[in-house]
Amino acid sequence: MKFTVLRSSGHARRGIVETDHGTFDTPAFMPVGTQGTVKALTPHDLENLGAEIVLSNTYHLYLRPGTEVLCKAGGLHHFMKWSRPILTDSGGYQVFSLSELRKIEEDGVRFRSHLDGSMHLFTPERVVEIQRAIGSDIMMVLDECTPYPADEEYASRSNDLTLRWALRCREQFDRTRPEYGHAQNIFGIVQGSVYPGIRERSARALVSIGFDGYAIGGLAVGEPAEEMYEIVALCNELLPERAPRYLMGVGTPENLLEAIDRGVDMFDCVMPTRNGRNAMLFTRTGRLNITNAQYKFDLLPLDPVCECYACRNFSRAYLRHLFVSKEILGLQLASIHNLYFYQWLMREARSAIMEGSYQDWKQHQLSYLVQEVSQT
Amino acid sequence: MKFTVLRSSGHARRGIVETDHGTFDTPAFMPVGTQGTVKALTPHDLENLGAEIVLSNTYHLYLRPGTEVLCKAGGLHHFMKWSRPILTDSGGYQVFSLSELRKIEEDGVRFRSHLDGSMHLFTPERVVEIQRAIGSDIMMVLDECTPYPADEEYASRSNDLTLRWALRCREQFDRTRPEYGHAQNIFGIVQGSVYPGIRERSARALVSIGFDGYAIGGLAVGEPAEEMYEIVALCNELLPERAPRYLMGVGTPENLLEAIDRGVDMFDCVMPTRNGRNAMLFTRTGRLNITNAQYKFDLLPLDPVCECYACRNFSRAYLRHLFVSKEILGLQLASIHNLYFYQWLMREARSAIMEGSYQDWKQHQLSYLVQEVSQT
Repeated sequence: MKFTVLRSSGHARRGIVETDHGTFDTPAFMPVGTQGTVKALTPHDLENLGAEIVLSNTYHLYLRPGTEVLCKAGGLHHFMKWSRPILTDSGGYQVFSLSELRKIEEDGVRFRSHLDGSMHLFTPERVVEIQRAIGSDIMMVLDECTPYPADEEYASRSNDLTLRWALRCREQFDRTRPEYGHAQNIFGIVQGSVYPGIRERSARALVSIGFDGYAIGGLAVGEPAEEMYEIVALCNELLPERAPRYLMGVGTPENLLEAIDRGVDMFDCVMPTRNGRNAMLFTRTGRLNITNAQYKFDLLPLDPVCECYACRNFSRAYLRHLFVSKEILGLQLASIHNLYFYQWLMREARSAIMEGSYQDWKQHQLSYLVQEVSQT
Repeated sequence: MKFTVLRSSGHARRGIVETDHGTFDTPAFMPVGTQGTVKALTPHDLENLGAEIVLSNTYHLYLRPGTEVLCKAGGLHHFMKWSRPILTDSGGYQVFSLSELRKIEEDGVRFRSHLDGSMHLFTPERVVEIQRAIGSDIMMVLDECTPYPADEEYASRSNDLTLRWALRCREQFDRTRPEYGHAQNIFGIVQGSVYPGIRERSARALVSIGFDGYAIGGLAVGEPAEEMYEIVALCNELLPERAPRYLMGVGTPENLLEAIDRGVDMFDCVMPTRNGRNAMLFTRTGRLNITNAQYKFDLLPLDPVCECYACRNFSRAYLRHLFVSKEILGLQLASIHNLYFYQWLMREARSAIMEGSYQDWKQHQLSYLVQEVSQT
């Protein structure tokens, strides 16, 4: 993997990541395909809306379809028919948020499957091996996503464990080879809750181990946005210029623009797809809930200036009808539109950085992004 | 509307219907878009899989989004973004099958909406007016879909009412004009349950009123397939050569091939989409339930010789994973595949008729269609 920063605008960076499955531009938003599919979209839809990399999930893929199926299929790229880069989350977050019972030990985390109650053990080594079977271009280390709020002592001990696991992941990564011929890469994850001292220790330790990129984890878990932005800024000051920085699980369009301004290169979030399936649409001039009665006769596109498949073809009145009638096509079109919006936002951000005017552009966008759209 | 029979093979006919929204080839299968969307598919998907005409439903569209929305949108074609022909069922069948309370009177049928309990009256005149607002290329008369089994007296009285309603529909059609500039057409519906005498009276009466095409209704409602085929053959002998014949709500691939052999030109059925959403897939060599454990590691396409988007890109193992994981993409791909299969079957049937070898081709197909696919 090769990361090249083409231009900076303040702390904001416009870069390119080269992988064996092609390049992606940064700042990048990765649509979330938890179970090996971005919900309600075909890979063809994803390419059309401008996605260059997708995220999938080790925990989910390990439980279903299982590594045996993925190996037989020649890895996740072939299985889900996505030929561009894939990043896989390690599954740590899902173990902590989904499984009914989990026990953290030095060796790893023992958990009960949320699907069938079966017991499993994720060790750092095992998580690397599973991601070898998945064949993701970028794998993530096993970490404990420290819950919020956490007292400083808990956050510190949790981070120490995350760091020991990170080293074991790195070592297992170095001991093993890719299974499908293409190079794989591994990112470390900075933890430390909202404590600058722990975050600093975490970042420095990970850099000294050495990873292909660095993620900032344990944010957007309930802390105020300002606190998140401060931690992001602090981490990015400590992380190397030469490696991509990935803010995990974030977030709203506003969050993305602020984090880019503090040096973040990569994002993932279920928000565009999940909110879309719940009838909430992002537009250039604010958000709208398409089931509102005010859209019953509204023949405008969801967003009159958007060029996505949904906006080029359908009216708000039709989308409202689909949602009110619980038609699957509503979920498809809303997901296409919201992901297109996120990709558009990243393209615009990249242009603004190239022009050296990111901060002005950001302020201009922020004045629109959080409005509710009134009928026009 | 113009209907041209290009060639016959026995009673099977290969024709072309020309409408103001373009032509469609017969024998034709119409995907069902009850609420102004073929479930889980975009109009783009529908064109790609070869659909030339879709069916939608007066009862559903009248209740939701309502004619006021459709009028403002300039008709259903614009609303759902489908520029090819649309046929609308009159809603009679849905009133009888869906509404909680219905009362048949000479004037029409009074019913309670299955959505909100509100009371409505469908008269023959009203149903034509609603279909004017929808703007369908082919509208259907209001009929009573005689339930099965029905005694001969009930079937006879029911058919008499259907005939009186058919005349009123025709008169209302002649009194009114299209609302959107394109020509509309109207089909009569032959009823009469399984009684040849009533079917004959029905067909003769409708032909004497005169319609652009003739449907055979009240079949595939529980009667044995052989009985259905006999009634179809009888009706088609009585219906004019110059007009298309439409067998409503039918059916399985086998049903279609047998009905074509008896002179039917048009079909609609929810089977390919509904069964697809329930994991049942049609293939050239039989049917398969994709959730079966035998497909867990099966890397073949759903149907190795099929050229649909699903088969060109995905394995049975992936489709199974999507269904087991309750992912929306499974519903999309299964619907695409099954509808493509039905369109393929009609294309092949049309070719066989052109070659004058329909009956041989049909026998060959029937030997495969009903098999369960074993793992290959």
